[in-house]
Amino acid sequence: GGFRGGELIVNTFAYHFTPAGSMLECGAQALGCTVIPTGVGQTEMQVTTIRDLRVAGLVGTPSFLKLIVEKADEMKADIASLGKAHVGAEYLPPALRQGMAARGIRVSQSYASADLGLIAYESLMPEGTVNEGMILDEALILEIVRPGTGDPLPAGEVGEVVITSLNRDYPLIRFGTGDLSAMLPGASPCGRTNARIRGWMGRADQTTKVRAMFVTPKQVNEVLRRHPEVLKARLVVEGETGNDRMTLKCEAGERADGLVEAIVASIREVTKLRGEVELVAPGSLPNDGKVIEDARKYG
Amino acid sequence: GGFRGGELIVNTFAYHFTPAGSMLECGAQALGCTVIPTGVGQTEMQVTTIRDLRVAGLVGTPSFLKLIVEKADEMKADIASLGKAHVGAEYLPPALRQGMAARGIRVSQSYASADLGLIAYESLMPEGTVNEGMILDEALILEIVRPGTGDPLPAGEVGEVVITSLNRDYPLIRFGTGDLSAMLPGASPCGRTNARIRGWMGRADQTTKVRAMFVTPKQVNEVLRRHPEVLKARLVVEGETGNDRMTLKCEAGERADGLVEAIVASIREVTKLRGEVELVAPGSLPNDGKVIEDARKYG
Repeated sequence: GGFRGGELIVNTFAYHFTPAGSMLECGAQALGCTVIPTGVGQTEMQVTTIRDLRVAGLVGTPSFLKLIVEKADEMKADIASLGKAHVGAEYLPPALRQGMAARGIRVSQSYASADLGLIAYESLMPEGTVNEGMILDEALILEIVRPGTGDPLPAGEVGEVVITSLNRDYPLIRFGTGDLSAMLPGASPCGRTNARIRGWMGRADQTTKVRAMFVTPKQVNEVLRRHPEVLKARLVVEGETGNDRMTLKCEAGERADGLVEAIVASIREVTKLRGEVELVAPGSLPNDGKVIEDARKYG
Repeated sequence: GGFRGGELIVNTFAYHFTPAGSMLECGAQALGCTVIPTGVGQTEMQVTTIRDLRVAGLVGTPSFLKLIVEKADEMKADIASLGKAHVGAEYLPPALRQGMAARGIRVSQSYASADLGLIAYESLMPEGTVNEGMILDEALILEIVRPGTGDPLPAGEVGEVVITSLNRDYPLIRFGTGDLSAMLPGASPCGRTNARIRGWMGRADQTTKVRAMFVTPKQVNEVLRRHPEVLKARLVVEGETGNDRMTLKCEAGERADGLVEAIVASIREVTKLRGEVELVAPGSLPNDGKVIEDARKYG
């Protein structure tokens, strides 16, 4: 996050019943920063602390950063000392990052989880630009797999982030994070050469309900397994409440006679539901990690 | 608290905007314990954690210990693994300690503050008995002074705890804690030979309002300073709302003519209030650290 030794940091992650507070505190202390643990909530006290102690940096979720800055405006509190924030634990909207930059707060993010600790982090150029993507933590092995399977995807395809961590205290082998991302080609402009991923791109678990029955990515992949001619598939669920329709769009090179009928039969066997099948050209399905797309309109 | 390396400890002190959580965590980790930081509140989750992980020890306030044990009873949760608790930050009622002992939880306490960290601690005998009094932390210098003054009291007299801490990071010279205690004679049965104090005996700040005016321990001592014949004094405030009376009880050896009248005049000069004076025999005032006793009935 561009923090430097000697700087005063407010840590707005919680320490109670979650490792987030402690994890970020240890990181900041390793850099030589002094950390004020505030936890979540108490926004007014957090603003007062930043103002009175001229705090240089903030660590927390994007939401809390926003809340605190808005509260400072409301209180007309001078928090100009706050020049950087390092965020995580939820999606960082680009508009929020731009808004913060406009008022002099440089925002960078990292991607971590309670089980794994740090997974990947953004890097900064000397003049402060935040580089694209996130660099994988050097101690981890990362795979991108097709959701609902353990099968690695070709570079650049969006899929579930699966991590192997060989640390002695808490080793994890092929731990499915449930998050979607993809590998980024090339090396970071900052000079680090480890693997890079695009940021967090959504959750991998696309289990949905169709006509009151659960349909899972694993079932979609079971259908695919029965038809090797199909290279990639995406189950699209449409319709109004009480009238769900599902269509399996299949990228297929060879289109053997009876393929569509055979897939329809497999769908019924695996999901106990009726589904249509539409054959599409290889490479035509979107690269967004979705095995099941819920295209129904709600509300 | 009798904690041992390898034990699992629940830390119910808060980590946010207070050093208590972190202070106790560092202590437990130095012993080799594994600490689960829960913070305050979330009593049900604390009980579930103790039950599911078979937690051996608890750190927190006496109130929270009580709340958690009561919640466990209410939930019919088996928390028999919890055999010890180390408490602080507020008064530990002897009845609470006895009640906990009766259900197999040994309770010991320490006396600490945000500025000083640990001040004094109870020690245990090998078989688990908690020794009388608290042993002073080896890094501190402790004085017991007359409330409202910096004057050290003879050993055994109750007065304000004043601490000198010569640590490099945050030195404090004669820091008045505002707490009352007294030195205990002799050495602890556990074998430690450092100074011992009786536990926390109340707050030293006895400033009170008499006929809508503040009267402070410092003013009482200013009156005494003008009359060296008086060895010790205690201002007793009595009466019903709107009809306060105050009497300065003075231990005096020599009772010179006009002494009472002279003290009455001094009281008026120093406090702007009328007060009576009663001479009593040396050694007859109670040894409880009180310079001002508010004997009014409220409600």
